[in-house]
This record gives sequence, C-alpha cells and structure tokens, in this order.
Amino acid sequence: MQAWVIGNWKQNPATSHDVNALLDDLCAAISTTKQMSHDNSARCQIMVAPSFIHLAAVNGRLKDTSILCAAQDVSGHSASVGAYTGDCSAQQIVDAGATWTILGHSERRQYHQESNDTLLQKMIHALSQDLGVVFCIGESQAQYDTKQTLEVIDNQLAVIKEFITQQPELIKALPTRLIIAYEPVWAIGTGKVPTVAEVSATHKHIKQILAGFADSLSNMTVLYGGSVNADNANSFAADPMIDGALVGGASLKADSFLTIATAFSQASI
Amino acid sequence: MQAWVIGNWKQNPATSHDVNALLDDLCAAISTTKQMSHDNSARCQIMVAPSFIHLAAVNGRLKDTSILCAAQDVSGHSASVGAYTGDCSAQQIVDAGATWTILGHSERRQYHQESNDTLLQKMIHALSQDLGVVFCIGESQAQYDTKQTLEVIDNQLAVIKEFITQQPELIKALPTRLIIAYEPVWAIGTGKVPTVAEVSATHKHIKQILAGFADSLSNMTVLYGGSVNADNANSFAADPMIDGALVGGASLKADSFLTIATAFSQASI
Repeated sequence: MQAWVIGNWKQNPATSHDVNALLDDLCAAISTTKQMSHDNSARCQIMVAPSFIHLAAVNGRLKDTSILCAAQDVSGHSASVGAYTGDCSAQQIVDAGATWTILGHSERRQYHQESNDTLLQKMIHALSQDLGVVFCIGESQAQYDTKQTLEVIDNQLAVIKEFITQQPELIKALPTRLIIAYEPVWAIGTGKVPTVAEVSATHKHIKQILAGFADSLSNMTVLYGGSVNADNANSFAADPMIDGALVGGASLKADSFLTIATAFSQASI
Repeated sequence: MQAWVIGNWKQNPATSHDVNALLDDLCAAISTTKQMSHDNSARCQIMVAPSFIHLAAVNGRLKDTSILCAAQDVSGHSASVGAYTGDCSAQQIVDAGATWTILGHSERRQYHQESNDTLLQKMIHALSQDLGVVFCIGESQAQYDTKQTLEVIDNQLAVIKEFITQQPELIKALPTRLIIAYEPVWAIGTGKVPTVAEVSATHKHIKQILAGFADSLSNMTVLYGGSVNADNANSFAADPMIDGALVGGASLKADSFLTIATAFSQASI
C-alpha cells in the first residue's frame, strides 16, 4: 500500500514570495534526496495543501512534479457555483488543479462549528466533482482523558456511513478517493503525541469500522496527524496500521517535511 | 463624492476560463463605453470581488486598469499567519494584490453564523493590514415586516463603534478605508427592491449614526445592495444618499455591471 504524506499549510505562508521559497526548497530537497528517487516517490505520495489564495499558483508550480495539490476545505453549499459569499466550491478547486481536499479538520470543527451534517454535504460536493477527500477525525483532550476516543471517532465516521447511504453511486470511488486522517486534537500543534501503540490501536479500530460499512472499504488508507515531525516520523512509519501522515507545522520546512516522507517511503519497502 | 460600484461574484464563476471571459468582456466594455472615459471612471470607482481561489489571477489581470480588486471575506483568527485550516488572512489577501475586502455579507452571517464579535475581529485584522472594508448590514424580511430595520442596522453598526473604542489609532483610516453596504437581506437575489425613498431614508440614518460615532465619519460612503440591475440603477444613482452599489448576480455580466457603473458615474457629474 502506498503511503501518503500530506502537508497542511493552514493559514501559511503569508506571502507568495514565501510560498515560492517553500516550493523551491521542497523541489530541491526532493531532487537531491536519493531515497526519494522516482520509485520511492511511488511508495510515498507527497501532497501539499496551501491556502485557497495560493492554490492555483502552487498547482501551477507543481504540475510537472510528483507532488499533488489539495485544498484545505470546500464549500458546503454547492459543488459548483452559487450565491455563497466567501466560499470556494469543489468545481472551482478542481478547475484550479487540486485533486484532493482536506475536510473536517479540527480547526474548522472548532472555529467554524462544522457539524457532521455540514461535513456530509461537503463530502458529497467534493466526491461528486471527483475531488478526493482527506477526512479528519479525532478526539479532544477531555474526551481522551475520559476514554471516549473510540466513541468520538465512531460518531465522526458516521458521516461516511451516511454518505454511503445517500450516495450509493459514489461508493466505488471511496477506496481510491477517500483517506482518513486520525488527528487527536490534543496532539495538534502541542508537541504532545500519543504512543505509536495507541495510534496503531486506534487506526485498527478505524479500519474495522470502515470495513463494516462496505466490503470495498476493507483496505482504506488511514494517516496519523498531530505533532508529527522529523524526529518521530520513523516510529510512526514503522507501524503497519499507520499509512502515512498529515503534517502541520513541520510541512512548512521542506527538509523536515521530506524527512517525514522519506521515513514512510522507506518503511513501505 | 466618488461613487463606488462593486461586483460581488460570490461563489462564481466555476472556472478560470469563465473568469477570464468575464474580465475580457468587462475590460472591453469599459474601453468602448464613451461615458466611462477616464474622467468618468474617476467619478465612479469600479471594483470586483472574485472567489479567493481566483483573487491573485484576477488582480494580475486588472493590475493596469482602473478596476480595483477585493476579497469576499477575511480570516477572523489572525491578520497574518497561523494554524487556521481553510482560512485566508488579511496579509495573504493584500499580498495577492487586493486592496479591499467585503465583510459581514448576509450570506456569511447566515451560513457561517458570523456574529458582531467575529466581524469586529475581522475588521481589526483587515484594517490593521490596510485592507479596506466594505461592511455589509441589512435586515431580514421578518425584521422589515415588523419595522425593525433601523434597530437591526444600529445593532450591526455597533461593530464600528466598538472598533473605534478598541482601535483608536485606526480611526483616521476609516473615512477612506471603510464603506458601508446596506443590503436588505430580503432584496438579495430575490428581484424585490425597496423604494428609492426607503433606501434613501435608511442611508440617511446610517450616515447620521456614523457621524455620531466620530466627526471624521460625517461623510461616509454608503452603498445600496440587493437586486440592483441595469434597469433600476439610474433611480438609485439619482438619489444623493446612495453613493453606489454592491452588485451580485448582475456583476457576472459585464454589460449590465457596466450599465450600473455608468449610471452612478453620470449621476455624480
């Protein structure tokens, strides 16, 4: 199974100058990293998710590379056009060249009160435009402390079950166009990380739940996200339940991001 | 006083091809419209607000024209960078070349539950980056029917009063970097429009409220928005209280948009 290492740039960088510098570094680092030679990059798909405002330009820069481009969100109102001031649709994103979108990141669940209903609509709009979905799930510190992790995850995964119910014609796309990113909220940007064993057990649970939704979902890609960095990447990559990483801050530095990708590339040899 | 005619493209067009076609039409229409000769365009400032995903490209296309570029929203979390998946900051927007942003559009108040507190933060972030603000206010059908228009507007304008209290150092920017757009929600995209007299009286009230906040706000630009089109533009433009228009659907067709701009340009002779 191909690993995935995805950089979520969030509301960064501030300028197109800094975006270009980051891309220069990333492309240079990839070309010089012997481990990331062509066949290795086939073992680990690298993707970056810039801000909407940089998406078209970043995609233009990466067109001739193996690096894919994703959006960080998608409009929940319509897949195409409409009177929705401030929102960008799945069709606009695909037209800009991105092939995936992150959905349900905990920052949007928290700051924009994104509910399961909202995320179901966004998932339908995205996949109806063949925009792949990296669906983020994960528990808060309080939920972790009170041992509700699996309960929270099951509730969040219910969006996929409802999607299957409502969109039977799109089920066949899911194995290749849906990725789950388990991001314990308490580990995002905090430097705190669960043990690899904890992550592995949670990923195993997620894969079982998905397999229960449909036979075709018995081999889904599940990434870990939350304070992944160059130092701990090897430990996560070594576990067979962890198919890659959704990387935040560490993705804004090309060398650390590439070290993470190399770890997952080598682990999948 | 210079009139303003601003096109809010909302979640349109779907493709960069259609964006370029719209810009081609707009630039062609402007160059052929005698009334929009140079001095007229000084009397009516035209601005377009594309989707985030098209902002940099649209600004690049319009750089050598008199047409300004605005964003449709701005991050409420930080003016610059940060861990805010899916949001675009004022600094990113300014860096992309836009000089204004729409804030508080009723579609964002409704679909994204934007409160006065959220809009105050967005206004602070925008103006701290010298990103001008087109602040949208307006009552719903129910509020109009129960004669609460002015009460609703006063409550929405309270954001500006609080802004002045919290950001005294930015007050001097307001006369040139803040525009109010009165958009009765019940007139947006419905074809229903209030009478010119109603709009004029409401604008008069808005101007008085602003003047009461600070002497420097005694001559603010107040635009009308809500089903403005080529047929009714002249009637709105003829009223001295209506300083321009925030145009929705009609801005997606160059000729109707330009007819509206021409109406306001001629009215301010």
